[in-house]
Amino acid sequence: MRIILCGFGVVGQSLVKLLDSRSEDLYARFGLKPRIVGVTDRKGSAQESSGLDLSRLIEVKKKFGSVKKYGNGKNKQTGLDLINNLDADVLVETTTSNYKDAEPGMSHITSAMKQGLHVISVNKGPLALAFPSLMELATYNQVLLKFSGTVGGGTPILDYAKNSLRGERISSFAGILNGTTNYILTNMANGMTFESALQDAKKKGYVEEDESLDLDGLDAAAKLVILANWIMDFKVTLPDIKRIGIRKVTTSDIQKASKNNCALKLIASCNKDLIVSPKEISLNDPLCVNGTLNAISFTSEHSGTQTIIGRGAGGIETASSILRDLLDIRQEISKN
Amino acid sequence: MRIILCGFGVVGQSLVKLLDSRSEDLYARFGLKPRIVGVTDRKGSAQESSGLDLSRLIEVKKKFGSVKKYGNGKNKQTGLDLINNLDADVLVETTTSNYKDAEPGMSHITSAMKQGLHVISVNKGPLALAFPSLMELATYNQVLLKFSGTVGGGTPILDYAKNSLRGERISSFAGILNGTTNYILTNMANGMTFESALQDAKKKGYVEEDESLDLDGLDAAAKLVILANWIMDFKVTLPDIKRIGIRKVTTSDIQKASKNNCALKLIASCNKDLIVSPKEISLNDPLCVNGTLNAISFTSEHSGTQTIIGRGAGGIETASSILRDLLDIRQEISKN
Repeated sequence: MRIILCGFGVVGQSLVKLLDSRSEDLYARFGLKPRIVGVTDRKGSAQESSGLDLSRLIEVKKKFGSVKKYGNGKNKQTGLDLINNLDADVLVETTTSNYKDAEPGMSHITSAMKQGLHVISVNKGPLALAFPSLMELATYNQVLLKFSGTVGGGTPILDYAKNSLRGERISSFAGILNGTTNYILTNMANGMTFESALQDAKKKGYVEEDESLDLDGLDAAAKLVILANWIMDFKVTLPDIKRIGIRKVTTSDIQKASKNNCALKLIASCNKDLIVSPKEISLNDPLCVNGTLNAISFTSEHSGTQTIIGRGAGGIETASSILRDLLDIRQEISKN
Repeated sequence: MRIILCGFGVVGQSLVKLLDSRSEDLYARFGLKPRIVGVTDRKGSAQESSGLDLSRLIEVKKKFGSVKKYGNGKNKQTGLDLINNLDADVLVETTTSNYKDAEPGMSHITSAMKQGLHVISVNKGPLALAFPSLMELATYNQVLLKFSGTVGGGTPILDYAKNSLRGERISSFAGILNGTTNYILTNMANGMTFESALQDAKKKGYVEEDESLDLDGLDAAAKLVILANWIMDFKVTLPDIKRIGIRKVTTSDIQKASKNNCALKLIASCNKDLIVSPKEISLNDPLCVNGTLNAISFTSEHSGTQTIIGRGAGGIETASSILRDLLDIRQEISKN
């Protein structure tokens, strides 16, 4: 299986390490033999139609900060160049999420699908802005568009709701979908001010380069769009979400929640409306998790309320979700 | 799809109601048209090769306490009689779990598989005593043996670990798998003695007819056997589990846990060893749920620790898991 990898940050590198370390096992157990034929990062590119050497790729990136020094020919290709010129089966899109125009991910994904490539996106931007039309484009071009890593990191939340609960009707759900704001609110519950909790989260590397994605609830809202489309068959995009972030949460809000035997959490919920907003959650509710944990509760017609809790982010966790998507694509291809 | 239903208690009746209320939807969405051709309870049987009338079945059971008054012919058939004489595709086995010889469930299941019937068991007895050999028998006879409802009730724990985490390697797991003992221990944490907590649980109808199944950890151990075989590919049965129940838990044990910022829970764990035993769990651990809730944490190689929480039992919840199994069998049959 020939893969083009756009974006070579933490997630992209974790994926390459994972594929490298498990190559024998993946072939033996699943018949999966992934070859990365092209990769781009912010500074350049590397390509090799027979497959790049994965450990060398990691080494070069570590040493020079870019794959462009891999050094076997062209090294200034953009993602689009690779997609339009290389023979490949799958695009793995890991560039940074952006909720203005979703570029360059949007162009990568649409071009790839038009070329007949299956797509795995962990970039939430294109899905948040255009989920319904991207799914249509995938159907039209008879390719798969997979995105397990966009919600819950390595915790297979989307798969659980769609597959493990098949035959069930999910009537509503609510979740803590952003670990950074949960970390900040947890620290505030332990007595910190908003400002010092934010600084602490920044020091730990939990906050996005554009802090608005976390603090104003954009990241949580993007995940809510994906969940609502995928699980509830809604046709919605980011502007359909009512969104209030955590910037205005005060110490007294936190104390008030505590008096009610609750904690204040940034909750993304889908009932009749789609809302991201701070909300008091009972300390006894399984949803009420602390630190950087993510949690989501699905309420179904017959099976009651079920909660899944896990780490929502992290390079290796998200890489493991890309691997699951690759295995699904592998299985789908083998049917034809 | 022609079904024989052995056992017509809470779960069996919930299943019949569920199939009745959703018949149109199940046919439209999944092409599933279930017909119950035979049913037994402790007092007798009912059968009809074109399918029993489901609402009438419920009515008769309610009015006379047994299906034998359904009244269109033979009504003294045993489960084995039905399995050996009726044309059917699936056996749904819902008789009471028994961990001595697992009868009558064991004979029902083995006879059905030898007749070429697929089997759905929510009866844990046969699986706890003979999981490896039952799976072999299923393979030999080329039938499916499904058992989603045995662990977690309506919460698809087995499916999550096996399917949603495909491509992952689960290294260990630990769970609260018995709601009754969790309810008792939660009440003890709130100040009750063991004896009064037990009486309260009995009044609420949470305790098995044979209280030893709950209190001595047999129910949790049976579920641990099923999880270890299914998810970890162990070949184990009930005698392989080290098992300590909650009868000897004292108020001072509970207080000691509380001082350590923990709660005492009956934990079924699979690491190197398979153990059911009371254990202190940190109050901050997502696994530490209260009341009758069940919870299980899987630790995987790449995706970290993930916890699923849900109601572990209940007629309608377990019926929903049987429905999932029926849909799987439906899908499998349509492949051939």
